[in-house]
Amino acid sequence: MSHHPDFDVLTRTCPSRTSLARIANKWTAMVVTALGDEKLRFTELRTAVTGISNKVLTVTLRDLERDGLVARHVHEEKPPRVEYELTELGHTLLAPLAALWRWADEHTGKVLAARESYDARR
Amino acid sequence: MSHHPDFDVLTRTCPSRTSLARIANKWTAMVVTALGDEKLRFTELRTAVTGISNKVLTVTLRDLERDGLVARHVHEEKPPRVEYELTELGHTLLAPLAALWRWADEHTGKVLAARESYDARR
Repeated sequence: MSHHPDFDVLTRTCPSRTSLARIANKWTAMVVTALGDEKLRFTELRTAVTGISNKVLTVTLRDLERDGLVARHVHEEKPPRVEYELTELGHTLLAPLAALWRWADEHTGKVLAARESYDARR
Repeated sequence: MSHHPDFDVLTRTCPSRTSLARIANKWTAMVVTALGDEKLRFTELRTAVTGISNKVLTVTLRDLERDGLVARHVHEEKPPRVEYELTELGHTLLAPLAALWRWADEHTGKVLAARESYDARR
């Protein structure tokens, strides 16, 4: 099996590159994974993805909504309650992202060891 | 199958999050994919990943080398010839990245349509 895509995603003019750029982003990957099959409020997401700032979470959610990956539900209450969930399209991202998380889980030990050895040589 | 990882990669203190942050980066994803099974020189990589600047490619390659994903070979010629290739560890990234590329290839049409419709409502 070739790992090279059969389209030229490395070319700036390839539209797939735009959506790759969106998903190949650590905050996007973490927010999508945190949502999973749940409906979450902004504050719940901020707690789930520790270290994310309000600003970055706001921008990440807006970009995900714009790209059709996340739906925003506004419940008419006082004060209004807003929930976020993955759309059908957003759900299709969970499996490829899970493959990345598994990679990170399996190989982080080696990455950290390589880093230590590299820094020791400098 | 649950898509949620069985470790808490969303937590700042989880070391896997560090390596996820590295690979969930569009330039990293593109440089690793461009290398594939080949040895490439800096200028060849810059041509393969159109739009990448010298500075970003330099930093991306150094980070990949530091993390043990890319090996840098210096050939003693005049002028010295430098080539980059994926290490064994770097090769393990190709499959999960290919899953992301496939996602982008299959779903970019829907993403672009969602984006157009979102912008039309603004």
